[in-house]
Amino acid sequence: METILTDIENSILTITLNRPDKLNAFNAKMATELLAAFDRADSDDDVRAIIVTGAGRGFCAGADLSGGSATFDFENRPDKAALGSPIRPDGTVDYGHEAVRDHAGRVSMRIHDLLKPVIGAINGAAVGAGITMTLAMDVRLVSENAKIGFPFVRRGIVPEGTSSYFLPRLVGISQAMEWCATGRVFDAQEALAGGLVRSVHAPDDLLPSARKLAAEMAEGAPVAMALTRQMMWRGLGYSSPMEAHRIESRGVYTRGQTADVKEGVDAFLEKRAASFPDKVSKDMPDYFPWWTSPEFG
Amino acid sequence: METILTDIENSILTITLNRPDKLNAFNAKMATELLAAFDRADSDDDVRAIIVTGAGRGFCAGADLSGGSATFDFENRPDKAALGSPIRPDGTVDYGHEAVRDHAGRVSMRIHDLLKPVIGAINGAAVGAGITMTLAMDVRLVSENAKIGFPFVRRGIVPEGTSSYFLPRLVGISQAMEWCATGRVFDAQEALAGGLVRSVHAPDDLLPSARKLAAEMAEGAPVAMALTRQMMWRGLGYSSPMEAHRIESRGVYTRGQTADVKEGVDAFLEKRAASFPDKVSKDMPDYFPWWTSPEFG
Amino acid sequence: METILTDIENSILTITLNRPDKLNAFNAKMATELLAAFDRADSDDDVRAIIVTGAGRGFCAGADLSGGSATFDFENRPDKAALGSPIRPDGTVDYGHEAVRDHAGRVSMRIHDLLKPVIGAINGAAVGAGITMTLAMDVRLVSENAKIGFPFVRRGIVPEGTSSYFLPRLVGISQAMEWCATGRVFDAQEALAGGLVRSVHAPDDLLPSARKLAAEMAEGAPVAMALTRQMMWRGLGYSSPMEAHRIESRGVYTRGQTADVKEGVDAFLEKRAASFPDKVSKDMPDYFPWWTSPEFG
Repeated sequence: METILTDIENSILTITLNRPDKLNAFNAKMATELLAAFDRADSDDDVRAIIVTGAGRGFCAGADLSGGSATFDFENRPDKAALGSPIRPDGTVDYGHEAVRDHAGRVSMRIHDLLKPVIGAINGAAVGAGITMTLAMDVRLVSENAKIGFPFVRRGIVPEGTSSYFLPRLVGISQAMEWCATGRVFDAQEALAGGLVRSVHAPDDLLPSARKLAAEMAEGAPVAMALTRQMMWRGLGYSSPMEAHRIESRGVYTRGQTADVKEGVDAFLEKRAASFPDKVSKDMPDYFPWWTSPEFG
Repeated sequence: METILTDIENSILTITLNRPDKLNAFNAKMATELLAAFDRADSDDDVRAIIVTGAGRGFCAGADLSGGSATFDFENRPDKAALGSPIRPDGTVDYGHEAVRDHAGRVSMRIHDLLKPVIGAINGAAVGAGITMTLAMDVRLVSENAKIGFPFVRRGIVPEGTSSYFLPRLVGISQAMEWCATGRVFDAQEALAGGLVRSVHAPDDLLPSARKLAAEMAEGAPVAMALTRQMMWRGLGYSSPMEAHRIESRGVYTRGQTADVKEGVDAFLEKRAASFPDKVSKDMPDYFPWWTSPEFG
Repeated sequence: METILTDIENSILTITLNRPDKLNAFNAKMATELLAAFDRADSDDDVRAIIVTGAGRGFCAGADLSGGSATFDFENRPDKAALGSPIRPDGTVDYGHEAVRDHAGRVSMRIHDLLKPVIGAINGAAVGAGITMTLAMDVRLVSENAKIGFPFVRRGIVPEGTSSYFLPRLVGISQAMEWCATGRVFDAQEALAGGLVRSVHAPDDLLPSARKLAAEMAEGAPVAMALTRQMMWRGLGYSSPMEAHRIESRGVYTRGQTADVKEGVDAFLEKRAASFPDKVSKDMPDYFPWWTSPEFG
């Protein structure tokens, strides 16, 4: 890995964005490596919770602008040849072509699909893709040194990282619009007051607090956790409670017959910690996944 | 009724969960009796607001675990014979079968359909189904003694009570995930800070405060109230404001020609209390209901 | 214009509701004039942000009740002849007929479609249509003198102004139901605590604060701003993040190749204010609008 570090300890995977000399600026390579790291996390039963943080004094400064004003111009992208052109023979654009696809959005979509709970530990600047990539994480903790911004209109570009789905749901449409329409950079307290982050921490306390919360999450039954995470995040998009009622009923029915639930209830009645036998890698119920993932195209 | 008490006073129906020796633990009987009580409330024009509370020191401790580790196992359910089996001849599960259906979700769906405003007065422990059954209520007031939890992953089971639709909409997806992924039991102040409850009260003040709020709600025109409640709750699931615009237009047009509105405007201009003639039992407009309720199957 | 005033200064359009002797009560004429003013604002490249406020001591007292109890009765509406009847020959109502359409909802739908950011500066009473017309505005600032209410059930009528879509999304379904089920009139502090308004101001500070925020918004690239506003508001209604991912990808791809983005990045790297060449009137991308507006009927 060139752009990230990974480490597993006490069943918690920590992913560290690792381009500290560039405030961990986001690029195509980082996107690719994050996708691979999340894939591995989901297939590794030893990972029961995930923390994402940054090396050095920044979390992620957003798109790497060291290429100057051509940064966002597809014609100047290094991976253009590999991707092929989305321009059709008649000159129109095929917006469903993979080359058009936003890298930060691809990362957010992957996080949305995660089977393990994931915590953003935002240790410093988190701007543009640096903050939008965290919006599909379950919880965001932030250092009191953090600076956050959705500066798209000030660069002439638009929100990405699937933020137009997640941000208004996380902080409300009014706060989302104030931050996106001003493009202002704001501090940890404004992020807390606006509902974007769960809690603000002294720099030395950020990772310990994230680990404590991750450890609390890592105690749950892994299969129940994977189902719960997808039930809640997908529930956000349902148009009727009946959709939730159907999936919940399947879950209560199928899990109710497993050794996991018998252990969970016994442990509760015996006032001891539970030890759940079922694993995400092989014990997901037959109805999972209950959705069809839409194609990008 | 074996598991609940009901009482009507000043047009306010109070439903009291009544298994105090078991902290009002939830079971199939309680689900059935709650459904019947809500049906009667909707058909009784003397009921203009509803309060749900618990007898004794708990509100509802969740599923009754006195059956031990087999509690959630369908094969051990007492009503299995009556319900029939959801297993098809080829061994697969018919997830649309009524036997699969989550009891707490059935209660939440019924509350979602209510035509009268409903207040949860959470007087003590509200855990699992004990709290999810309140999520489709309009407002939750809580005693400072209350303990609340969504402990599903700690038992190996999944969220129920239609909570995967309601909880992320009530408290935001991050707070919903923190509570569901940790399964922690938390106190009234954490519930208030997280947006789950409207207000925290001294034990002696809980029911009086709920009654005061219910009385304020009971002053509205009953037909307008029934329409308003369904407009707001169904509006949560709309994918476009045009859906709301169409239904609101029907409501303004049809109600605008009624004696109710003439009385409401006259009373306002004359600075007196209004006395609305129309009744939910016979004066709902011809376009109601404007939705088709999806089947469980 | 009979019912509103308009003024453009420093690229900020201020629309002032102007029936001060009637607390700027809402009527059909005001709806028509607001629609025209918003149309002009969208087509005028000199307008980069919009403020809506009220003349005199009120913002908007809601529907003009000077016609008494017949106010909401279609049979007594002055524009009935022009609109024609929604009653079909068989006596049933054609709810898709334009005559049925709620005026305040028409205004909210137009605001929802705006290409410029819009701030409500609520200087006094904002009741009924007076507050629902602000719900599709990006941000609401309020005077400490303001009184707000959703009094529909107390008049026997139902929520309008598309509030059944916007209100539960802005303040949560529980707060929305408490305000709509009680119909209570509440003050600025309750509005702030409930999440309905961004901030409370002394009367003399309200418009200066609104102008300062509007000026901050007016610095963004106009085309990016128009796209951003529609992306965020329409994102509220998406059922899956993939819908957002597709539109964001189009935006990053197409805007990334424009002079606007090159100027935005250059200005950032050179630490100077940007001067964006592209205009909403002629430079919107070929995929805009990406949605099909549903008809009322």
